[in-house]
Amino acid sequence: MDVQTYMTELGRAARAASRQIARTDTNAKNAALHAMAAAIERDAEQLLAANAADMAAARAAGLDEALLDRLALTPKGVAAMAEGLRQIAALPDPVGEMGDFAYRPSGIQVGKMRVPLGVIGIIYEARPNVTADAAGLCLKSGNAAILRGGSEALRCNQAIAALVREGLRSAGLPETVVQVVETTDRAAVGALITMSDYVDVIVPRGGKGLIERITREARVPVIKHLDGICHVYIDDEADPDKALRIADNAKTHRYGTCNTMETLLVNETVAELILPPLGEIYRAKGVALRACPRTREWLPDAEAATEADWRTEYLAPILAIRVVADLDEAISHINEYGSHHTDAIVTENYGKARRFLREVDSASVMVNASTRFADGFEYGLGAEIGISTDKIHARGPVGLHGLTSQKWVVLGDGQIRV
Amino acid sequence: MDVQTYMTELGRAARAASRQIARTDTNAKNAALHAMAAAIERDAEQLLAANAADMAAARAAGLDEALLDRLALTPKGVAAMAEGLRQIAALPDPVGEMGDFAYRPSGIQVGKMRVPLGVIGIIYEARPNVTADAAGLCLKSGNAAILRGGSEALRCNQAIAALVREGLRSAGLPETVVQVVETTDRAAVGALITMSDYVDVIVPRGGKGLIERITREARVPVIKHLDGICHVYIDDEADPDKALRIADNAKTHRYGTCNTMETLLVNETVAELILPPLGEIYRAKGVALRACPRTREWLPDAEAATEADWRTEYLAPILAIRVVADLDEAISHINEYGSHHTDAIVTENYGKARRFLREVDSASVMVNASTRFADGFEYGLGAEIGISTDKIHARGPVGLHGLTSQKWVVLGDGQIRV
Repeated sequence: MDVQTYMTELGRAARAASRQIARTDTNAKNAALHAMAAAIERDAEQLLAANAADMAAARAAGLDEALLDRLALTPKGVAAMAEGLRQIAALPDPVGEMGDFAYRPSGIQVGKMRVPLGVIGIIYEARPNVTADAAGLCLKSGNAAILRGGSEALRCNQAIAALVREGLRSAGLPETVVQVVETTDRAAVGALITMSDYVDVIVPRGGKGLIERITREARVPVIKHLDGICHVYIDDEADPDKALRIADNAKTHRYGTCNTMETLLVNETVAELILPPLGEIYRAKGVALRACPRTREWLPDAEAATEADWRTEYLAPILAIRVVADLDEAISHINEYGSHHTDAIVTENYGKARRFLREVDSASVMVNASTRFADGFEYGLGAEIGISTDKIHARGPVGLHGLTSQKWVVLGDGQIRV
Repeated sequence: MDVQTYMTELGRAARAASRQIARTDTNAKNAALHAMAAAIERDAEQLLAANAADMAAARAAGLDEALLDRLALTPKGVAAMAEGLRQIAALPDPVGEMGDFAYRPSGIQVGKMRVPLGVIGIIYEARPNVTADAAGLCLKSGNAAILRGGSEALRCNQAIAALVREGLRSAGLPETVVQVVETTDRAAVGALITMSDYVDVIVPRGGKGLIERITREARVPVIKHLDGICHVYIDDEADPDKALRIADNAKTHRYGTCNTMETLLVNETVAELILPPLGEIYRAKGVALRACPRTREWLPDAEAATEADWRTEYLAPILAIRVVADLDEAISHINEYGSHHTDAIVTENYGKARRFLREVDSASVMVNASTRFADGFEYGLGAEIGISTDKIHARGPVGLHGLTSQKWVVLGDGQIRV
């Protein structure tokens, strides 16, 4: 069977399953989620072994450190997967939520009902936890899912997928609600993103090359983010302790994640106060600095930044630093060079905090908090299927509600238009 | 100057204007809306004369009745345009709305802020009221707009656009917040829908051919509906008076609109009761019937329906009628043959109403009301920019909120990820 035929069969099965799961009641969906979580905990050792085999193969293939960081699954990671599924089970079922009903002058009563999107295609690389998270979020939101993970995580993904199917079966739901693409043929991706009859939305997670290709070739709507070029701006009215703590954490907590700070902006008034101690912190952790000329007055060891540095997502222990004159320059820099993902200001000034929140055009805007908080778990979504830097449909971390739509409901007593 | 260069200049100006209008306060936007409304009322005669010239040219060109119906502007229509703008001014400003703030275990407080989409491209045919409605909705929602109306409505659209610019000017806002494409060259559309650097979303309104072309060629997200194949299902527990009233109104109130009923489904138990008097009503109004064999037992004059009739949006005094065995068959027919636009059930049964609302997969689902209510005005949106049959982003009538997005706001006191 060729890839196109194989994918069409997956699509047809997913469409049929989506009709059934859209009508499935909350208890059955939660029972499946709990069964998946229990199975993952029960088989934790096997998942870790599968991941270890994936990691060894990836290292042998010379894959880079950022990717290895994403690929790694720890016992804590397995526990978090199971916990994530239980958190999703504990969340209110979004399907069928109704609200905003109001009577209109005509006498009709108009409101909204939340409904699943239908079939969701997830295309991802590395991170094995995506398989469980995506399955759980799609299921709870009443959608069918077709998952296409990266070949570097194949062993672990297949092991997780088997436990997902076990969970569905045990709750009396069709296994086709969550299907994993079994071929590593790249043509499978091309088929998935163009089957508009069978797939309602694509959520790609992975490197920029993958996402650009998908965006260019997809004939199905895509919820995506290309880059996480995140900024922290240290204002002249920043609390210095908070500024150092946040600038440290936003860069060094994890290097390979999309919500990691890539450019630090420092108000010129506090450059002398902030930059030398911050330079010490980064030096101790081995973070290489790319700095503007004014930054280098205080950090002479830093390499000179080029224009390209302001537009680069390093995903590595590298940080660009720029001294700016004021809030206006900081906001302009972020809106011009950033990727509209996550940006934070450190300040004690009310008015400047308010202006930053309104005028920075990013999916997440923060005051006095690390950019690392931009995450579905941290925001209370239970888990996330991705982080969108688009403005259409869903923006920022996408959880259950991002995988649903709302239809209008009209309740009447025989009303007609006059 | 070639069309591509011309459109790029419009795009650049729109992007710059979008940054300004996103920050403009509510009072200035409302002042512009009121000034536009006053100017439209003041120049009502001129608008009607421009429309009369457009209508004469359209008739001479042999354009069809449905299009002429959409093109027609009456004194009532002009008043409704001005009233629509005032209603938009009276609506709460969606930009900057904040809500859903909650503390998370980490100590950060997470919520959402509503923001404009940026630049909206509107491509439409006929209906001259779209020019004022679209300008008003884009302005109030903090977006810049590029409007590309049909050549058949050019005189009237240009007259309205001049009044929109007058309104913007009088409120001290840049005229480039709302720009009208001045060329009738079709290449302008091709440029508009591919300028992803300058346009954030396209809203096409018009015939199926136009919308299919735009959907196929756009490199910018599209909020659209292709078809309005709307159904009314008359259940065996329907109130017969309501059933006749709704089936009459949904078909005959206006023939050329997307929320007009195109297929009537009648439960077999009440076919004998409902079909003969309904046939009289339609006969008196000159509605041609295309019916299934069982319908023709009661309406022998009706033409036999073909499979194609169930998938046709007539936009004309033609109605397809089918007798169905029960609610299941009605729901299956609607989900299979409909266009997911607007569908209604007439019933007094609570459980069947509830099932219809949940299981019919359409942008608007109704109980005991005419499908003609599916409209931004009737739903209380102030006006509508279009009706979406997509599920992504906006579904059904799209008003102010459909032209905005939400970003996440995180308020902290120095929190870091641990």
